[in-house]
Amino acid sequence: MSNVIYLDNASTTKLNANVLEKMSPYLTEVYGNANSTHFLGRQAVKGLDDARDTVAKLINADANEIYFTSGGTEGDNWALRGFSAVRGNKNKIVVSSIEHSAMLETLKDLELLGVKVVKIKPNKNGVVSVEDFAREIDNDTFLVALMLANNETGVIQPVKEVFEIAKKFGAYTFTDAVQYIPYFNVNVKELNADMISCSAHKFEGPKGVGFTYIKNGVKIGSIITGGHQERARRAGTSNVAGVIGLATALKLSRETLETDYNYVLSLRNAFIEKTLKNIDIASVNGTLDNRLPGNANILFKGISGEALLFNLDLNGVCASLGAACSAGSIDPSKTLIEMGLSEKDAKSSIRFTFSRHNTFEEVDKVVNLLVSLVEKLK
Amino acid sequence: MSNVIYLDNASTTKLNANVLEKMSPYLTEVYGNANSTHFLGRQAVKGLDDARDTVAKLINADANEIYFTSGGTEGDNWALRGFSAVRGNKNKIVVSSIEHSAMLETLKDLELLGVKVVKIKPNKNGVVSVEDFAREIDNDTFLVALMLANNETGVIQPVKEVFEIAKKFGAYTFTDAVQYIPYFNVNVKELNADMISCSAHKFEGPKGVGFTYIKNGVKIGSIITGGHQERARRAGTSNVAGVIGLATALKLSRETLETDYNYVLSLRNAFIEKTLKNIDIASVNGTLDNRLPGNANILFKGISGEALLFNLDLNGVCASLGAACSAGSIDPSKTLIEMGLSEKDAKSSIRFTFSRHNTFEEVDKVVNLLVSLVEKLK
Repeated sequence: MSNVIYLDNASTTKLNANVLEKMSPYLTEVYGNANSTHFLGRQAVKGLDDARDTVAKLINADANEIYFTSGGTEGDNWALRGFSAVRGNKNKIVVSSIEHSAMLETLKDLELLGVKVVKIKPNKNGVVSVEDFAREIDNDTFLVALMLANNETGVIQPVKEVFEIAKKFGAYTFTDAVQYIPYFNVNVKELNADMISCSAHKFEGPKGVGFTYIKNGVKIGSIITGGHQERARRAGTSNVAGVIGLATALKLSRETLETDYNYVLSLRNAFIEKTLKNIDIASVNGTLDNRLPGNANILFKGISGEALLFNLDLNGVCASLGAACSAGSIDPSKTLIEMGLSEKDAKSSIRFTFSRHNTFEEVDKVVNLLVSLVEKLK
Repeated sequence: MSNVIYLDNASTTKLNANVLEKMSPYLTEVYGNANSTHFLGRQAVKGLDDARDTVAKLINADANEIYFTSGGTEGDNWALRGFSAVRGNKNKIVVSSIEHSAMLETLKDLELLGVKVVKIKPNKNGVVSVEDFAREIDNDTFLVALMLANNETGVIQPVKEVFEIAKKFGAYTFTDAVQYIPYFNVNVKELNADMISCSAHKFEGPKGVGFTYIKNGVKIGSIITGGHQERARRAGTSNVAGVIGLATALKLSRETLETDYNYVLSLRNAFIEKTLKNIDIASVNGTLDNRLPGNANILFKGISGEALLFNLDLNGVCASLGAACSAGSIDPSKTLIEMGLSEKDAKSSIRFTFSRHNTFEEVDKVVNLLVSLVEKLK
C-alpha cells in the first residue's frame, strides 16, 4: 500500500533517515561492548558518553543524571517500583487518573503491596486541577506523578505547579514526558522533576530505547540489576546503536522544534476546522487551549469508532481508537472515560495524530473520506 | 585501528551483515507500532509473529511461550523477581554461586525481601555438582536456577540433571542460556526448563534485545507492566527491528552451528596448546572437557592481568579480565574465586573468547605477542 496516510504519530514515528545514518557505524564496525576496556569497548563508550552529554544538555541536566533504558514503559515502571521500594515510612502515591497504562497497571501491583494510591481525575476538558492534587498531597506522600501531556488527548497537564506542592511535602516527583518532549523543550530544573522518562521512537528515534533522568541525590531502587552499566542503576549490555539513535533524534528534533510545532499545529487545526465544519456529529475531545500540536481526538457521535477506523484503514488512513498500548483490547479509552464521556462516546472517538511528514493535501483527503464514511456508517 | 584482533566474543559479537539486512525494512518503511491495528501496525505484527515462530521452533517451544525483552539481564531479573513475587509459602532459591552478575546482584535484593538464597559452589574445575544441588533442594524451594554455561570460563553445567531434581520437589526451574545458545541447540523440554533467557548480541544479533521462554502454565510476576504487549506479560512498544534481528541471527547461527563449533574449537585448542607450550607460567582455568568451544580462560601465574590486558590492547588485541559487565570494577573474577583461585591468581587470569571470524593466523600472532609481553611483565 503505497499511499498510506499515517495519522498515528502518537503511537510511533518513522525513524529519521539521518538518525539511522548516525546509528549505522554502531550497527556494523563499532560493535564493542561499552563495558569492555579495550579499543572496541572504548569506541562504544565514547559514543555512549557523547549521547549522554547531548541528551543531558537538551533537558538542562548533568550527564550523570541520564540513564538509558528500553523505553518509556520501563521508565514508568522504574519510577513507581523504584520509589516504592525505598519509601520508608511514607506510603502514599498521588497521581493523575489519566496516566499511561505503564503507570496505571503498575500502580495495581503496588496497591497489592500495600501502597496507597490516590488518583486525581481530570475535568471534562481533560486537565487535572492543581487544587485536587494539593488536597491529596501530604506528609505521607512519597511520590507525586503526573504526565506532561496525555497520550490520548494530547492535553498538557500543570506539572510544574503540582510538583511545587509535592516539593513542599518532601515527596519525590516523576513525570512521563513521552508525548510532550517531541514538541516541547523539557527543562527538568524548572519542572521541579526528580525523575522523567522518555522514549526515542516518539521523536523519530529507534524503538526499544529510551532515557530516564534522575536528579542527582535522589534515592530510588532499581528494577533491573546486575552489571555496573548506567552507574550501576540499570544493568544490561548497553544498546549503543539505539542510544546513539535516541540522542541524535532528540538533537535533530530540537533544531526544527519551532518550525515543526507551527506546521503540525496548522495541519491539525485545519483538520479539526474542516472536520467540524463538514461533519455535524463531530466534536473535539479535550481542550484545544493547551494541547500537543499534532493531536486531534474526535468524537463522531453515534458512530462506531471501530467501524470507522476499519474503513479508514481500508482506505489507507492509519489512525487509532486510543493508545496503541491497549489497541488489542476492546476497552474504551481510559482517558476519555475519566473525562466523563460515556462508554458509547468513548468508543465513538478516534485519535488522529499528525507529524511534520503529513501534508495539507492529506488533511483534505482524510476529511473528505471521513465525510463519506460517516454518512455511510450513520 | 584497522588490525584489531577481537578475542572478546563472550562480551559481544559483531552484528551479522545478513541480520542487519533483514532488520533494514523495519528501520525504514515498516515503522508501525505492532500494537496498532492499522496497515502499518499489521506489517509490524507480521514481522513480530514470524520472529516469534522462528525462535520458538528453534528451541522446541510454542510461539506463545516466547517473550521478547531488552536482553539477558532483564530475563535474569524477570526470573528472580517474577518468581519471588508469586512464591507463596515457599521461600528458598537454590542457585549456583557462579551465575552472571544479573543473577547474583538481583539475589541480594531478594535476600533483603526475606528470600532464602542458597548458593552452590563449583569444584576447582568450574563445575557445580548435582549432588550439592540435591542436598539443598527441598519442599521449601520455589526456584532452582543454574546457568547452562559460565560466562567467564565457558564451563558447561549439569542443568538437565539439576532440573530433574527440582521438578521432583515442584520447584520452578530457570536457566540463563546467554552464553550457551550461540554454540548449542537448546531444547527447553529436554532441559526441564520452565524459563530460559537469551540475549541476541551474543549470537551476532543486535544489542538491546533478548528473548525469554516461559513454559505455558507457569505462574510468574512481571517486572515491566503496562500495555498488553507480549501477551500482557512484558509491556512496552515492541522493538520490532531488534526482534527481527534476534530471530534472524538465531536462525542463521543454527544453519552453521556444527561448522562454527568445530572451527572455533580448533582455533581455541590451537591457542591453548601453543600458549601452554610457549609460556611456562600459563595454565587453563576450568575444565576443557565440557566447555564452550570459544573460551580460553588463562592464568598467567604472577603476572598482573590488568597490565597484560593493557599491553594486549596497545597491540590491537581485545580480550577481557572477566565478564564485561564488571569490567569497570577492580574486583577479581567472581567465578574464579568461587572455583578456589586466590585473588592474586584470579587477577592474573585473562579470558580470550574466539568466534568464527577469528583465524589461525590471529592465534599465532596473539600467542607470539603473549610470549613477549609475559617475558616483559614477569
